[in-house]
Amino acid sequence: MRVGFVQFSPARYAVQANIEKIQALLDGMDFDLVVLPELANSGYLHDDPAALRGVSEKADGSGPFLGALTKIAKEHRACLVTGFSEISGERLCNSAAALSPTGILQVYRKTHLFSTEKLLFAPGDTGFHVFSFREVCIGMLICFDWIFPEAARTLSLKGAQLLAHPANLVLPWCQGAMLTRSLENAVFTITANRVGEESGQGQTLRFTGRSQVTDPTGMCLAQAGEEETTIKIVEINPRRALNKQLGPGNDLFADRQPRFYQL
Amino acid sequence: MRVGFVQFSPARYAVQANIEKIQALLDGMDFDLVVLPELANSGYLHDDPAALRGVSEKADGSGPFLGALTKIAKEHRACLVTGFSEISGERLCNSAAALSPTGILQVYRKTHLFSTEKLLFAPGDTGFHVFSFREVCIGMLICFDWIFPEAARTLSLKGAQLLAHPANLVLPWCQGAMLTRSLENAVFTITANRVGEESGQGQTLRFTGRSQVTDPTGMCLAQAGEEETTIKIVEINPRRALNKQLGPGNDLFADRQPRFYQL
Repeated sequence: MRVGFVQFSPARYAVQANIEKIQALLDGMDFDLVVLPELANSGYLHDDPAALRGVSEKADGSGPFLGALTKIAKEHRACLVTGFSEISGERLCNSAAALSPTGILQVYRKTHLFSTEKLLFAPGDTGFHVFSFREVCIGMLICFDWIFPEAARTLSLKGAQLLAHPANLVLPWCQGAMLTRSLENAVFTITANRVGEESGQGQTLRFTGRSQVTDPTGMCLAQAGEEETTIKIVEINPRRALNKQLGPGNDLFADRQPRFYQL
Repeated sequence: MRVGFVQFSPARYAVQANIEKIQALLDGMDFDLVVLPELANSGYLHDDPAALRGVSEKADGSGPFLGALTKIAKEHRACLVTGFSEISGERLCNSAAALSPTGILQVYRKTHLFSTEKLLFAPGDTGFHVFSFREVCIGMLICFDWIFPEAARTLSLKGAQLLAHPANLVLPWCQGAMLTRSLENAVFTITANRVGEESGQGQTLRFTGRSQVTDPTGMCLAQAGEEETTIKIVEINPRRALNKQLGPGNDLFADRQPRFYQL
């Protein structure tokens, strides 16, 4: 299975420009699954909630962004996981959609909102669920979800072999912590981070790039630079994530002792 | 508060020699809390369960190892956390004891046994509990517990500001993962690993040293080398671990959404 990420700088409110960037980066590439950054349609910091609302889309694929990406998924016969600003009634959600040649497979709404996102978006109400693409079980996280071990753990216990993780990272720790998430759950992870800088909501943020693919032993299989716009694809065997054995005497899931754990 | 670790190579079955090594390393040092390696009384690999049984001690402090260490705790007016081979009826347990000048504060039995330990020790039945020393709330983990995020999480949710972590590490990942454990729980951690090599039970193991102290932002405050016998003490402010805020908009505990988490 050929999997990877697109790392770029989504332009604020410029949905069509963002679609074209993504299309250009994917053009001619051979892949089965690609992950795009968080809020790839809208950009990140928003002083003007009305403008954000204007580019937000329903989760049914009727909007231009998810519509165009579903078309790309069809052309490439592949799965795309992208972050996007979702509108649902009066609410905006910081969401991720898994798009296949046959349409939307699943939508996830970010459970753990970061910082000033709480002023724009409603907390996610979907919880953590997995979906299947070409018989590979996949789960979605968005950005700050990484710091809560329960997020990756829950998806992995539900069978996820690969965690697709759209992100707009500004803190320095995620890339290292995702090695631990991979290792403790024996899963692959793909963190698709953005690059560039944005000002708004009283702050200037510099996004940290270094998008990466990790494997079930916590190895980094591919990593982008801090600033580059790029796509990276690696070949993986997702069946490796079905095996939770660590050495001859341990199984990371069978050895768990939930009666001693506190939620 | 002055906290740290002793890193050395416990000799197999040589309880008195191990006591003397520990005593010599602590001699003249000024500290409030020191963590010693896992199975610091007995050594690690055992072809002869009877010999292991012979040096194992009850958890009540009546044996020579915990007795001597309690005396050291009294002399230093400090807390020692040490791994030891415990005997309880017919069972042997891979345990850790917290020793204060007033005696044993708590005993923890390793929940997640590693590899061939399962042939020697009964699985821990204590679960994860915290204790208090000089108004600082402390929890104990032993070695392989590190790979199960629920272990550090459970202790932290119960109020632990510092995780004392005796270890006999042979895998390469723990020291990096403990940075994540610190960060995701906003706690201090002290991993006291051993050094040296042992053969037995059909294998030869090389222990990886690099004992460390980490802080609530996932920074490493002190780390030993891979092979050295040493003690390291650092000054920390344990109150930092009471604050779970991450930036102005997030609280790592208040932001948790347990209704979406799976045990």
